[in-house]
Amino acid sequence: MKWKMGIAYQGTRYGGWQIQKNTRAIQEEIENSLDILLKKKTPIVGSGRTDAGVHAREQVAHFTTEETLDLYRFQYAMNALLPKDIRILWMEEALEDFHARFSAKKKIYHYHLHLHPVINPFQREYAYHLPYPISKALIRDAASYFLGTHDFTAFSNQADRGSCSRDPVRTLYRLDVVEEPEGIRLEFEGDGFLYKMVRTIVGTLLEVGKGKLKVDQIPVIFESRNRSLAGNAAPPHGLFLVKVFY
Amino acid sequence: MKWKMGIAYQGTRYGGWQIQKNTRAIQEEIENSLDILLKKKTPIVGSGRTDAGVHAREQVAHFTTEETLDLYRFQYAMNALLPKDIRILWMEEALEDFHARFSAKKKIYHYHLHLHPVINPFQREYAYHLPYPISKALIRDAASYFLGTHDFTAFSNQADRGSCSRDPVRTLYRLDVVEEPEGIRLEFEGDGFLYKMVRTIVGTLLEVGKGKLKVDQIPVIFESRNRSLAGNAAPPHGLFLVKVFY
Repeated sequence: MKWKMGIAYQGTRYGGWQIQKNTRAIQEEIENSLDILLKKKTPIVGSGRTDAGVHAREQVAHFTTEETLDLYRFQYAMNALLPKDIRILWMEEALEDFHARFSAKKKIYHYHLHLHPVINPFQREYAYHLPYPISKALIRDAASYFLGTHDFTAFSNQADRGSCSRDPVRTLYRLDVVEEPEGIRLEFEGDGFLYKMVRTIVGTLLEVGKGKLKVDQIPVIFESRNRSLAGNAAPPHGLFLVKVFY
Repeated sequence: MKWKMGIAYQGTRYGGWQIQKNTRAIQEEIENSLDILLKKKTPIVGSGRTDAGVHAREQVAHFTTEETLDLYRFQYAMNALLPKDIRILWMEEALEDFHARFSAKKKIYHYHLHLHPVINPFQREYAYHLPYPISKALIRDAASYFLGTHDFTAFSNQADRGSCSRDPVRTLYRLDVVEEPEGIRLEFEGDGFLYKMVRTIVGTLLEVGKGKLKVDQIPVIFESRNRSLAGNAAPPHGLFLVKVFY
């Protein structure tokens, strides 16, 4: 039978979602707990990878097992085995054709910017701190240029993943700039996101906010499909995968 | 000259504000930075102690030095020397008769309760997690019994500090129960707080919320001046010193 689960994690201590050498992975921790409970190697498939340091309020993954699970007890046991910075939020039975990655219709990511001369100690692992002034008006203006359906090649690092051949066209339904007590939150809602796409868009918005890039250059960068013209990727610790829709 | 400063800290890694043996103290970290910058042992006086694991959004402290300080640069240098979980938020000159502890007129503390079957990994160091249901209505009802001027002996651990002779009468101006996305926040505003008073009141409110203590017992406990009749102190990591008024 197929099962799906919602997972929250604080990414600070991990090398990312995916299993890699010389670093701890979220996926690995979850698979280790499954292996213990099911007494069998049980791979899981996530809705997508998150990089080292990126957080998730609700990642989704699926796995298959021949066991019949008492879901409530199984979830409780998983959480008892997992480190405290990874939690299984819910578990339910999935339809046979459900696939955490390929069935995903839409995702929401948030990126937190902490705009204050002194960093708030409670934000330091959850927001990118900018101690100097930036123009929120320019950021709002620039954000609108990313909405809609585009070839996002220039605003991603697809090539780094050896996945150049993947379709680089994505649709961004929403990019809201929301005021927070000591900064802003950038809310991204789209049908899918290329590798480092959110962080590269944030980095580009910051270039605009600092006055180093004019908004009218954004369509030119899209057109160029040249990654080096966009801003640097903003650091991972400000990024949260918030929700995956199916 | 006398100087005062606002300090934020995440208390997780510390044995509390005050210098003690075998543990790191917030006060100690700040004094170490001052010693380096002023090349002289420079004690600081805080508005009050916070226990191991308790956080501060804005603690206030003062110190005296013969040096003339360039405040902006001095604050910057302090933050460069301090660990990242302690930040100097502001520094300013204080009047000669200012005393961080004795001049304090009012304080605000917040206590965060995380009420959800599964703990949110982002809350685990900042809120007390209760995975079972409690009655918010009973907590609201009970909170009103603590308002006003009382002898808070039964709701504090004054004796533990060998300060039994200290006046145990305090005035609580406000105890609000505020809804949060996954729990409630208890906001305490008073002219002063005895040792472990906030956490003991929270522990007692939780006994009421669980149905183990009737609200009409609260006046009886006040009257008794008997600490053992009140609830256990709630754990420190849900508590924040939010603001000190002068």
